[in-house]
Amino acid sequence: MEILYGHHPVSEALKAGKRTISDIWLVRGRSSPRLEKIVEKAHANDIPLTRVSSARLSALAGAERHQGVCARVSGFPYVSLEEALNDGILEKADRPVPVCLLLLDSIQDPHNLGALIRTAYCAGVDGVVIPKDRSAAPSPAVSRISAGALEHTRLIRATNLVKAISVLKSKGLWVAGLDRAAGDTLFSMDFKVPLALVVGSEEKGLRPLVKKNCDMLVGIHQMGEVDALNASVAGGIVMYEVFRQRQAVRSITRGGRSEHGGQK
Amino acid sequence: MEILYGHHPVSEALKAGKRTISDIWLVRGRSSPRLEKIVEKAHANDIPLTRVSSARLSALAGAERHQGVCARVSGFPYVSLEEALNDGILEKADRPVPVCLLLLDSIQDPHNLGALIRTAYCAGVDGVVIPKDRSAAPSPAVSRISAGALEHTRLIRATNLVKAISVLKSKGLWVAGLDRAAGDTLFSMDFKVPLALVVGSEEKGLRPLVKKNCDMLVGIHQMGEVDALNASVAGGIVMYEVFRQRQAVRSITRGGRSEHGGQK
Repeated sequence: MEILYGHHPVSEALKAGKRTISDIWLVRGRSSPRLEKIVEKAHANDIPLTRVSSARLSALAGAERHQGVCARVSGFPYVSLEEALNDGILEKADRPVPVCLLLLDSIQDPHNLGALIRTAYCAGVDGVVIPKDRSAAPSPAVSRISAGALEHTRLIRATNLVKAISVLKSKGLWVAGLDRAAGDTLFSMDFKVPLALVVGSEEKGLRPLVKKNCDMLVGIHQMGEVDALNASVAGGIVMYEVFRQRQAVRSITRGGRSEHGGQK
Repeated sequence: MEILYGHHPVSEALKAGKRTISDIWLVRGRSSPRLEKIVEKAHANDIPLTRVSSARLSALAGAERHQGVCARVSGFPYVSLEEALNDGILEKADRPVPVCLLLLDSIQDPHNLGALIRTAYCAGVDGVVIPKDRSAAPSPAVSRISAGALEHTRLIRATNLVKAISVLKSKGLWVAGLDRAAGDTLFSMDFKVPLALVVGSEEKGLRPLVKKNCDMLVGIHQMGEVDALNASVAGGIVMYEVFRQRQAVRSITRGGRSEHGGQK
């Protein structure tokens, strides 16, 4: 069990229905339309609600930024890569574009993890893969930073990222690693294929073995002399370039034709 | 005077030469190629260097993340919009693409200000306009978050953002405001014209009068139900879409032709 805090994490956890929620605490003597929605949802799901002081909420959350609400929930439900594959993550029956996964190599800063999960959700990425070791965990703080997007995310925990890459390649995915030394390649790549994007840490980039196993390396052109883009901004730029390229596929398919095969 | 801290802010301030640097303090008993470069530059510029304890650096910086170096510098050199215009910011004699400015409306979080300045620098934006009130200041913390990009940035302080928009329109710029309610317009816009991008705060977006004065509103398509992209990620996605569209213009012009007029 752990304690989620903040309006977005709690309300998105209620919507997503992936976690068991055993208790909700609300600040005493305050209300708002957002908090009222949480009350309604909690009643509908028979979750006990308790009114407490703001100081008590801070103590429960272990953080000040609780926005008047905390919830005791089961730990974040990871799936393994095998489970995700059995679950049909690659099929995407509901959408005309091929799968896109985000693989995070050694993202140890909760802020970057939360921001990348938030953007991945907004950009329609189908799942996020993190390694068992060398990764920030999907903590309540990460849920808060992700604006609750974590609660809806298919988060896949791989024992070994290089092995996961090899499995994904065998399933027909192209593996594209974000690498600052790759030069100006982002806008000349074809992202309309089944895709796994790999983002490394801001300080060190991709680990050598991860990089070696990528099919292609993606570089974002940068002017000037300053070191590099922030990891979560760089990831966002690439995820939305994938989105942009696939938008054309979507509108063609909506029109009744499909000019895109998506096979490797 | 203020105290810059961290390797990037100090070394970029030395490179940019925009501030007076009166003292540099380095941590005692430690060296690295990065610190050595700062020592060389300081010697070349006759700046006094002192070795002190790490605790003394923390006290000077008012922060722990000093990475072994602090510098006493003059306050960040703003320019006014009038000075920037007189200085020929719109002319861009050195590049074939028209001007692109970033206007920040009520960005009060130093993290978002630093991240947006960092991305603007990487994406080749020509200047960043902030209002006199309702904006985070270009503090040493912002320089640190920007990875030193602030030190190279043409930062324009406008008394009134709406008035600045009106001046820029009169000079032939198109003003595009980022607005989450604008729907899916980002990838259908023409950003090859002289441009001012306006980004508002994450919580409230653009202020009504700022929004009303934009020529067009830019929306980024978002899947799912979660609130919105982070302001600095959203800004990064838009700045690099501008970059992408202009890349084509650059390569055409490099080939000896120019098919782009850029007039309003």
